[in-house]
Amino acid sequence: MPTGDRSRHGRRSVGTARLSALSDGVFAIAMTLLVLDIAVHPPGTPLEQLLNAWPIFMAYLVSFLTIGGAWLGHTQLTEELTQVDPIFMRLNLLVLLAVGFLPFPTRLVAEALQEPDALRVEVTLYGLTLLAIRLLGSALYAHARRQGLESPQEDRADAEDVPRRLWPVVVGYVIAIVVGLVLPDVAVVLYLVIALYLVVPFREVGSLLVRRRRASG
Amino acid sequence: MPTGDRSRHGRRSVGTARLSALSDGVFAIAMTLLVLDIAVHPPGTPLEQLLNAWPIFMAYLVSFLTIGGAWLGHTQLTEELTQVDPIFMRLNLLVLLAVGFLPFPTRLVAEALQEPDALRVEVTLYGLTLLAIRLLGSALYAHARRQGLESPQEDRADAEDVPRRLWPVVVGYVIAIVVGLVLPDVAVVLYLVIALYLVVPFREVGSLLVRRRRASG
Amino acid sequence: MPTGDRSRHGRRSVGTARLSALSDGVFAIAMTLLVLDIAVHPPGTPLEQLLNAWPIFMAYLVSFLTIGGAWLGHTQLTEELTQVDPIFMRLNLLVLLAVGFLPFPTRLVAEALQEPDALRVEVTLYGLTLLAIRLLGSALYAHARRQGLESPQEDRADAEDVPRRLWPVVVGYVIAIVVGLVLPDVAVVLYLVIALYLVVPFREVGSLLVRRRRASG
Amino acid sequence: MPTGDRSRHGRRSVGTARLSALSDGVFAIAMTLLVLDIAVHPPGTPLEQLLNAWPIFMAYLVSFLTIGGAWLGHTQLTEELTQVDPIFMRLNLLVLLAVGFLPFPTRLVAEALQEPDALRVEVTLYGLTLLAIRLLGSALYAHARRQGLESPQEDRADAEDVPRRLWPVVVGYVIAIVVGLVLPDVAVVLYLVIALYLVVPFREVGSLLVRRRRASG
Repeated sequence: MPTGDRSRHGRRSVGTARLSALSDGVFAIAMTLLVLDIAVHPPGTPLEQLLNAWPIFMAYLVSFLTIGGAWLGHTQLTEELTQVDPIFMRLNLLVLLAVGFLPFPTRLVAEALQEPDALRVEVTLYGLTLLAIRLLGSALYAHARRQGLESPQEDRADAEDVPRRLWPVVVGYVIAIVVGLVLPDVAVVLYLVIALYLVVPFREVGSLLVRRRRASG
Repeated sequence: MPTGDRSRHGRRSVGTARLSALSDGVFAIAMTLLVLDIAVHPPGTPLEQLLNAWPIFMAYLVSFLTIGGAWLGHTQLTEELTQVDPIFMRLNLLVLLAVGFLPFPTRLVAEALQEPDALRVEVTLYGLTLLAIRLLGSALYAHARRQGLESPQEDRADAEDVPRRLWPVVVGYVIAIVVGLVLPDVAVVLYLVIALYLVVPFREVGSLLVRRRRASG
Repeated sequence: MPTGDRSRHGRRSVGTARLSALSDGVFAIAMTLLVLDIAVHPPGTPLEQLLNAWPIFMAYLVSFLTIGGAWLGHTQLTEELTQVDPIFMRLNLLVLLAVGFLPFPTRLVAEALQEPDALRVEVTLYGLTLLAIRLLGSALYAHARRQGLESPQEDRADAEDVPRRLWPVVVGYVIAIVVGLVLPDVAVVLYLVIALYLVVPFREVGSLLVRRRRASG
Repeated sequence: MPTGDRSRHGRRSVGTARLSALSDGVFAIAMTLLVLDIAVHPPGTPLEQLLNAWPIFMAYLVSFLTIGGAWLGHTQLTEELTQVDPIFMRLNLLVLLAVGFLPFPTRLVAEALQEPDALRVEVTLYGLTLLAIRLLGSALYAHARRQGLESPQEDRADAEDVPRRLWPVVVGYVIAIVVGLVLPDVAVVLYLVIALYLVVPFREVGSLLVRRRRASG
């Protein structure tokens, strides 16, 4: 930790703490507000109503995982920061704008999935919001790196991860948005796959399994 | 505090702070959003409406205490952590998913308790969510211990508490879920009993009473 | 600051931070959720609808100030703490239960104030909730003092403030609750007066005015 | 950083942390609750419904940016504080009252923008709330400076920014409120312009562009 640098920019490091606090707040609230949109409706027995509401649960899951994935990326980025600049703070507000907006298209998709007609518009808006979260997060990352806001880091392998994961995800979202214009249901499944890709730590789970097999073998 | 270890994993300890911040946010919001589902309905005088709404207040209490109990366990666990790993952060997101979901089955049970027919499905979903919160919390605990994420601790008696309390609670939930298939009202009472068991610090209250009696005797 | 003590109870001081984080979250959410209950209804022009909704704005103000006052007391108390014990954490959950519940009776009163009949029940429930917040807060304070959880403090004059302010407030609430059984509107005004008494720092404003007069005179 | 001062007022600096935590919570929740008011309504195809709802999205954007701007100012101010006094904490509660109230007039304006008649009252209430947020924020700033709550600062150029930006904004709001009495739609556009003025860091973006041109030229 470059303490010298940090004390010189003492005021800015407070800015980092406040930025994290506001961001964690918005991430947590957006995650939790999603539950308000879950509702079951007649007709049917209570069990049938629950089972018919599966699209709502699926939309809840995709949005929760996407926000969770965005939070993981946000945390990984802000952990590296020793300072923030005014542009970073505003870009971060745009990220939070997109994250805080997600419950709305989630609700639209959940409602539309229950009514078979006209799902395209809702799924497209949903996909565009997911893409916006990702692109704005990357812009935040790029700005931090270009302005040298990060602490000098030895293990760059880890840090490279973010841009390396960016392009497959952006391409995935664009494909899903185009697919959704014809087959909206398929697009929702694709969004779930992307969310899982963002959240599941394949490498870590893999190395954990290998280590256990070795330990037991 | 193993400061040496902490400075080597400086980035990870920031991760612990962010993880706590996000988690406290979700716990606080889930607790407080429960109030949005409280509503009274005609017919009846205002007092009758309030008294008839007792199941809603009971569901509110059970859910609030269960989230409170989960938060107590979460705090006890994360206090011990000197670092987090990627799998821990994802498992934690699953815990938050279950906690953030709880207001939905709470609302279902509250509404169903006022209409005598067909309470089984709602109470079962409620019980499964409570069980999921507990099991995911335990998985988090088990992972932290297996990966050695905790600080070396002298007073293990305290730390052992979590798994010792796990199995009675899981068994309690399973019994309540099975009972709820036949007698859903009884299951809700059982969930209240389990929530109280999780939150009330019997040992501490006991020793406090003993100490006071000694002081006055 | 007794650093020695703090490092011995290192784990507990983390508990204090988490307790503050959860509590600040619940206070902030309860304060902000109040806005969801503000709504205007026909008939009338938009301006008439707004003006007719004055009881809602008044209930919003009373509840906001009461939660603000409770937060001020909570902050003043937890600032003194060097450690928390399990009973303190559970008592704190009960305080948060009452604070998180307040938006419900606020909504009831706001709705009832617009319909002249049958305001008594709502105002009484509201008063009982306000009283519960105050009494539970005092129980928290009394427990902390009895168990010696506070840091040794030189300026006790400040700390004594809390219990000295307790009894007038409790008596005020009891009077307002009794008055509310006959004159519910008057009770709401009394709750506003008590909330202002809790929040307005008369002594500080007074000494500020005196100092300014001296500076200018 | 005047550490001596800080340790003498140890309790107060904790107050600063709690004040920031509560404020960040309210800012984050107010920002995120705005999404609950977004809704589309028949008639029309889903796409038409979305496009017809543009005033709602615009109101969402203005309110989000205004809260974001207020948060930026709040962070800039509280970063400078080494201590808070009781009056500061109460003034801050008033700021939060205005911020937490904003989702209500936002919803009114969004609904009214869709129905052409009678937009004046809603837009005026909206403008008054925006003005109140700004004026209360300035009162907070003025109190902190008058009571010497800030840390001695070398780079005053930065700190002067807040009052220098205050008067154009207040004048802008007053003009927009007056304009809104005749042309409410124009007023909403003016509020957007002011919000952008508060949030967009013109100087920084400018110097960034200049630096880049130099680097490439």
